[in-house]
Amino acid sequence: MTRIITINREFGSGGRELGKRLADALGIPCYDHEIIQMIARENGFDERYVANVSERSIEAAYPLTIGHRFAMPSMPVMDQPIRVAVAQRQIVENFAKQGDCVIVGRCADVILKEYHPLNIFVYADLDSKVARCQARAPEGENLTRRELERRIRQVERGRRQFREMYTESKWGRKESYDLCVNTSGLEIKALIPALVAYADCWFGQA
Amino acid sequence: MTRIITINREFGSGGRELGKRLADALGIPCYDHEIIQMIARENGFDERYVANVSERSIEAAYPLTIGHRFAMPSMPVMDQPIRVAVAQRQIVENFAKQGDCVIVGRCADVILKEYHPLNIFVYADLDSKVARCQARAPEGENLTRRELERRIRQVERGRRQFREMYTESKWGRKESYDLCVNTSGLEIKALIPALVAYADCWFGQA
Repeated sequence: MTRIITINREFGSGGRELGKRLADALGIPCYDHEIIQMIARENGFDERYVANVSERSIEAAYPLTIGHRFAMPSMPVMDQPIRVAVAQRQIVENFAKQGDCVIVGRCADVILKEYHPLNIFVYADLDSKVARCQARAPEGENLTRRELERRIRQVERGRRQFREMYTESKWGRKESYDLCVNTSGLEIKALIPALVAYADCWFGQA
Repeated sequence: MTRIITINREFGSGGRELGKRLADALGIPCYDHEIIQMIARENGFDERYVANVSERSIEAAYPLTIGHRFAMPSMPVMDQPIRVAVAQRQIVENFAKQGDCVIVGRCADVILKEYHPLNIFVYADLDSKVARCQARAPEGENLTRRELERRIRQVERGRRQFREMYTESKWGRKESYDLCVNTSGLEIKALIPALVAYADCWFGQA
């Protein structure tokens, strides 16, 4: 059985770091930004545009069910987001076919449902998310707390809307996941042995 | 530092079993039905009545903030539920003072906030909860699926209402807990090593 772990996360919760460290500890690849890079490269898009389709500008989004549930007349203005969505699905499926892996974001838990992945949601309280955003801010970026809070809300709203166009399951609701991990005030690194143990137990009987 | 783990759970999710097994694995006591028995014994109540105050009949409930935030004139009709609440708080606090333990239900996560407990929420999908209720039903109890679903909804509504009279945090919302564990289709026993590891990591840095 292929052991696939998907990570969904609140912005600033450390979910990306958790995915990477968990994959390293398990000795399997972690796919995160690589997916955006591949979509961009294969379709001639700018990476920022691809990231935005799923996180920032819901206005630029599209019916992801297209091609699955109903036919749709050609709509040039929607072509690009649809191409992103189709490419994302193909790339995520190809990664899964290659074997065990951790995939961060990209609705991988929904795309790969038939693989029965272990779906983890990572979250934290607002103070912890702001602190993490500040700690990892690129040099020269000095956003105020209020600006960071606005960015966190904006990205999470984007992720929620993107997911809910894609699937009937709700972003961030525990029912959509197998394990929800609150990282408030915690160091991600210290949680990894426990999450490795969780994955072992979970795949041992799933 | 006292290591206290609190378990809140959906009805039929296996949360009680999880708490008991986790406590056994950690070599610490688990308090569950003992709390109801002590409240009943010390106040001359029937155990079923005590259980109902927190799980079934919200109409019989009371302002749990009484004595903390505002004074209230004597209201004989409300005396008994208040005595249950006060006794519950005292008993839960006494258990915590005695040392490391697992406490199932009883709003222990809120009562013991100052002890910084590891707060776990256990949940499952409806099919799994119905199946668990059927498997553990007392001999002679042959409820239909519809009756079991109604009981699950009723108990969970009671727990939600009880908690929300007691605290500002929401029952079952992941933000109220440190870890949320979905037991759908899983054997509780097999998850215990992972949860022991989680507790070790968590208390190691909390």
